[in-house]
Amino acid sequence: MLTETDTVTAAIVVIGDEVLSGRTRDTNSGHIAETLTRLGVDLREIRVVPDEQAAIVEAVNALRARATYVFTTGGIGPTHDDITADAIAAAFGVGIDHDPRAVAMLRERFSDPADLNEGRLRMARIPFGAELIANPISKAPGFRLENVIVMAGVPAIMRAMLDQVAPTLKTGEPILSETVRADAKEGDIATPLAAVQRAHPEVSIGSYPFIEGNRFNTNLVIRSRDPAALAAAKAAVAEMLSGLPRS
Amino acid sequence: MLTETDTVTAAIVVIGDEVLSGRTRDTNSGHIAETLTRLGVDLREIRVVPDEQAAIVEAVNALRARATYVFTTGGIGPTHDDITADAIAAAFGVGIDHDPRAVAMLRERFSDPADLNEGRLRMARIPFGAELIANPISKAPGFRLENVIVMAGVPAIMRAMLDQVAPTLKTGEPILSETVRADAKEGDIATPLAAVQRAHPEVSIGSYPFIEGNRFNTNLVIRSRDPAALAAAKAAVAEMLSGLPRS
Repeated sequence: MLTETDTVTAAIVVIGDEVLSGRTRDTNSGHIAETLTRLGVDLREIRVVPDEQAAIVEAVNALRARATYVFTTGGIGPTHDDITADAIAAAFGVGIDHDPRAVAMLRERFSDPADLNEGRLRMARIPFGAELIANPISKAPGFRLENVIVMAGVPAIMRAMLDQVAPTLKTGEPILSETVRADAKEGDIATPLAAVQRAHPEVSIGSYPFIEGNRFNTNLVIRSRDPAALAAAKAAVAEMLSGLPRS
Repeated sequence: MLTETDTVTAAIVVIGDEVLSGRTRDTNSGHIAETLTRLGVDLREIRVVPDEQAAIVEAVNALRARATYVFTTGGIGPTHDDITADAIAAAFGVGIDHDPRAVAMLRERFSDPADLNEGRLRMARIPFGAELIANPISKAPGFRLENVIVMAGVPAIMRAMLDQVAPTLKTGEPILSETVRADAKEGDIATPLAAVQRAHPEVSIGSYPFIEGNRFNTNLVIRSRDPAALAAAKAAVAEMLSGLPRS
């Protein structure tokens, strides 16, 4: 098991009917996951929920109670199906209204009052008590309320928002990992690999089969926050693999 | 809103530390989502959880109580980190043991008893009462217990299992959709689009911004189970777009 002391944890809520219908592939959660791993934050769960207030509220409230941070993506645009800000306000039981700071950000892009129409002003609706997250691409901000970080769904904008938030997060001891290509089928190494795992309880060893051409192969990923434990387990895995009968 | 009468619903549980670490991108849930949409099954939620029994049990039990079907992917291989079958048995409170039907399937591939070692035999551990799902690629089966369908994580094997399960599922009225490229920014159409949605409550209109070159554009996706309602709403969207002032 990985050490749980002082662990910083996270969860992601992807808000999007288009992901659930299979029309759009969610790439945001993979990017957030990579970023969190680099920061030593343990991502504990990802949920994809529909564009429905009750579903968003349920997921956000379940996850914000147990994770250090909850990241949401999607649903903060100007159209009628963008309901994330209202759902977050409902989840926290706080009010929501046009935020003068957010309106000022939108005015940087839409200086003509005719362009800052009712739809665009919806993007300035921010739950009371939230801090804004600037949007360098299209100005409409994300926001953070307590431990919930609300970001756009358009990948380029989401990434820009995450880049700003990342330096403000509590970070953990990064989890180090080593990948060893086994050049063996999982079934041929399962028993000795389990023995290595038992002998090295301070690392976590994952076994990931893949198909290459017509042959099964396996990547072994050893993870730990302790460099010495990681090196010892990696050596034990290599020794195990070198002792296999090879056909 | 989409009509809820006789709706067949589903949820997916992706079991995988490697997805949560960002190391692997989950492509399975997108493929399952597309398949379900084609079958008229409403996918209501996707959860990605770690390789931990308590997390798997919690997600499976929460979702099987509310969805017609729950699909799981991952964690049914031969190694120590493959714990899905045991977690499903625990979720249902049933026993688990080597299943003679599953052992027979494995013998088709591993005819030499030396190859059918302890690790590979782990893949024949099936919760009591489950039906098996054949694996034409590497033989180790998936299984179905009540409304929970347990599949492999290797994409090619998952797809082969899903192809077998799909014809056995209850299907719904397929949701039809039309995509209209707006050639307009979301903020310029938000208000009239909301009026179209209000006038056509029997369809669901989603608005999906994208960036092309340096310009924002929008895809509008209209969805309904009723072809006539879909056509009427599509015509109303086209009329709304043609009436926009164009710069």
